[in-house]
Amino acid sequence: MSQAQLKMADPLEPGALVADLAGRGRAASRVLAGLDAAARSRGLLAAAAALRAAAPAILAANAQDMEAGRARGLSAALLDRLRLDEARLEGIAQGVEAVAALADPVNSVAACWERPNGLKISRLRVPLGVIGIIYESRPNVTVDAGALCLRSGNAAILRGGSDSLASSLALHRAFVAGLAAAGLPAEAVQLVPVADRAVVGAMLAAQGLIDVIVPRGGKSLVARVQAEARVPVIAHLDGNCHTYVDGAADLAMALAIVRNAKLRRTGVCGATETVLVDRACAASHLTPLVAMLLDAGCAVRGDAAAQAADPRVVPASAADWDTEYLDAIVAVGVVDGVEGAIAHIERHGSHHTDAIVTDDGAAAQRFLAAVDSAIVMHNASTQFADGGEFGMGAEIGISTGRLHARGPVGAEQLTTMKYVVSGSGQIRP
Amino acid sequence: MSQAQLKMADPLEPGALVADLAGRGRAASRVLAGLDAAARSRGLLAAAAALRAAAPAILAANAQDMEAGRARGLSAALLDRLRLDEARLEGIAQGVEAVAALADPVNSVAACWERPNGLKISRLRVPLGVIGIIYESRPNVTVDAGALCLRSGNAAILRGGSDSLASSLALHRAFVAGLAAAGLPAEAVQLVPVADRAVVGAMLAAQGLIDVIVPRGGKSLVARVQAEARVPVIAHLDGNCHTYVDGAADLAMALAIVRNAKLRRTGVCGATETVLVDRACAASHLTPLVAMLLDAGCAVRGDAAAQAADPRVVPASAADWDTEYLDAIVAVGVVDGVEGAIAHIERHGSHHTDAIVTDDGAAAQRFLAAVDSAIVMHNASTQFADGGEFGMGAEIGISTGRLHARGPVGAEQLTTMKYVVSGSGQIRP
Repeated sequence: MSQAQLKMADPLEPGALVADLAGRGRAASRVLAGLDAAARSRGLLAAAAALRAAAPAILAANAQDMEAGRARGLSAALLDRLRLDEARLEGIAQGVEAVAALADPVNSVAACWERPNGLKISRLRVPLGVIGIIYESRPNVTVDAGALCLRSGNAAILRGGSDSLASSLALHRAFVAGLAAAGLPAEAVQLVPVADRAVVGAMLAAQGLIDVIVPRGGKSLVARVQAEARVPVIAHLDGNCHTYVDGAADLAMALAIVRNAKLRRTGVCGATETVLVDRACAASHLTPLVAMLLDAGCAVRGDAAAQAADPRVVPASAADWDTEYLDAIVAVGVVDGVEGAIAHIERHGSHHTDAIVTDDGAAAQRFLAAVDSAIVMHNASTQFADGGEFGMGAEIGISTGRLHARGPVGAEQLTTMKYVVSGSGQIRP
Repeated sequence: MSQAQLKMADPLEPGALVADLAGRGRAASRVLAGLDAAARSRGLLAAAAALRAAAPAILAANAQDMEAGRARGLSAALLDRLRLDEARLEGIAQGVEAVAALADPVNSVAACWERPNGLKISRLRVPLGVIGIIYESRPNVTVDAGALCLRSGNAAILRGGSDSLASSLALHRAFVAGLAAAGLPAEAVQLVPVADRAVVGAMLAAQGLIDVIVPRGGKSLVARVQAEARVPVIAHLDGNCHTYVDGAADLAMALAIVRNAKLRRTGVCGATETVLVDRACAASHLTPLVAMLLDAGCAVRGDAAAQAADPRVVPASAADWDTEYLDAIVAVGVVDGVEGAIAHIERHGSHHTDAIVTDDGAAAQRFLAAVDSAIVMHNASTQFADGGEFGMGAEIGISTGRLHARGPVGAEQLTTMKYVVSGSGQIRP
């Protein structure tokens, strides 16, 4: 049964639909994993070309989603996320080409060694298998996530939001036409062809059929997935990131880093939400830091010391220290040295990305070792928390969980391991 | 509140008890992770010494469990698992010393690189945090699991079976006395001091408090844990392992490997449960293989070809191909070459350990690449599926899941990753 037939048939019961998609995905992932890296690259390049060729159809489908969205009264922000145009579509196609150029992790050797009995053991990276992606209104996830799964030899089952279904279907149709043209299995990337929300529940329950679920969206989606899933989840929850300005920080560097960390983009998960200032340099550093933020248009919620530093600072409530604003708002407080910063971050942080600014190497080492976050930084902006900036190429997100993948999730993190043991007749004593 | 006070206080509500244990564990794991590897080794050696010194108390507590077990009518097999004696206790202490000698994974550098903008990025292995171990009647797990968690900088919360509670309490008391003597936090390894089964449910639900649950026990325990857990699980479910004797297999090697793979120990997860023989060599290899197994006391359940090979072979039912016997029983069938073996294993296997015996390098490569199991072997006994045999030192089990750890789970697999970024004032463009 092809996807087209699926759409026209009577709607399957959600569990049966997911089992069917997962079975096809498993078979496709076996084929994908058996190809060489160059074949996967050719498939990706063909998909990029097919996306460009299908631009009129994709933009027409998107116009239909946009019209329906306006009629349903979607907010301007949601409509902007939904919207495609020539330039955005070209960006999507270029993204696929960038993934095609990434190192292919499949069958790469993570370690190999020989035992005294002559057994040779290799640990290889192999695809996870079937990855479910549950996302909201951004239709580009259809392509971005599909491409990264393909690069890592995995089959993807994509479940996008109903707002963007027509756009996602058109993007998906072009993408898999490209795969097929390059001789790859089209069912390597499948899109749930119905808007039925019960399919999400069935995906979350598909233990043994889907190997991992990656939710891409707002906190309510991620929280629902984490609460309900029986399938393992790789997810990003909170990014309550801190920048700590140590007593031994260079003021000019601290000003530049804090400004960038908070304000370069306020809506990204690596944006700093709380600035902590060492009591030892508060007299010299606090006022310029607070003034810089306020002058740049950032609201500052501060403790008593920060309030005293500038009359425009409003009092921080207890909740402010735990809040991921994702906006031009920052909490500013004074702490007692690096130990005070570590204790504050342990209590209020979300273990995502936290930075220290200091010229004191020992203080930096202490901070980097003691702060238990996915990413810790010394003298750099927390906005570098990004797979692309790390040189890992595309990412499917930044994991805030501790199991399997922590931090940026790129192609390598979408693999599992396989031990290959080569002998010459060894038996175990 | 110490563990002793906990025992004497009114029983805490299970969720509160687990939250209390997890909070203490988190604090202890922070201390552990901040120590150097030598300090963790000293703690382990002191724990081994304390176990030896406490032998009389431990054996007395075990005698109490054994007496209660006999009174409750436990089977001879369960009583044997429960039983400790001088030799077994010495083995447990030596096991701790072996873990003390293992490479310490904490803060080891998995990868490091520099970006064009000068940022230096290191990916370090850091402890997972707090690990919950749920086990049954073997009291040695108290020590084995505690030691491996300690080696990897993790805090352990141990929940043993009620049959062995007195033994586990005595072992635990000695172990943590050793840790304390070496200056390590005793709460690095905590034992749930009550037999209340509701505590298991509370551990499984402790999302965010316990980082991972490792069940150690039979299928019903593991299945319950996998069905109920909200905390990520690293578990071993089925070990339906295959040995495929290819047409190009040397008969003498095949006989030696199959005998060892099936019969060295029948109760281990790496024991072969199904032997597949290539139709191309069935005329020469099938009868000697089947006769060897039967003569060695193994029951053989076969397909038509295997039944024709020896009158002692009984017919295999459909269920036999899916059964992990863990006993001196084997299913034997004929398949069409390496592709037939791959298809059979894909359909019936449990993705644990599967082996090919052949002198044909191309057939071996095809099998090793196409069989999607945690461990694949060429010309070696499946009974080598073991962390110790792999040179990984002690293992907490063999994971049959695909996420985080797959195959033997040693100290390195009990870590997560942390990215350390060192800059000189970089801001993101």
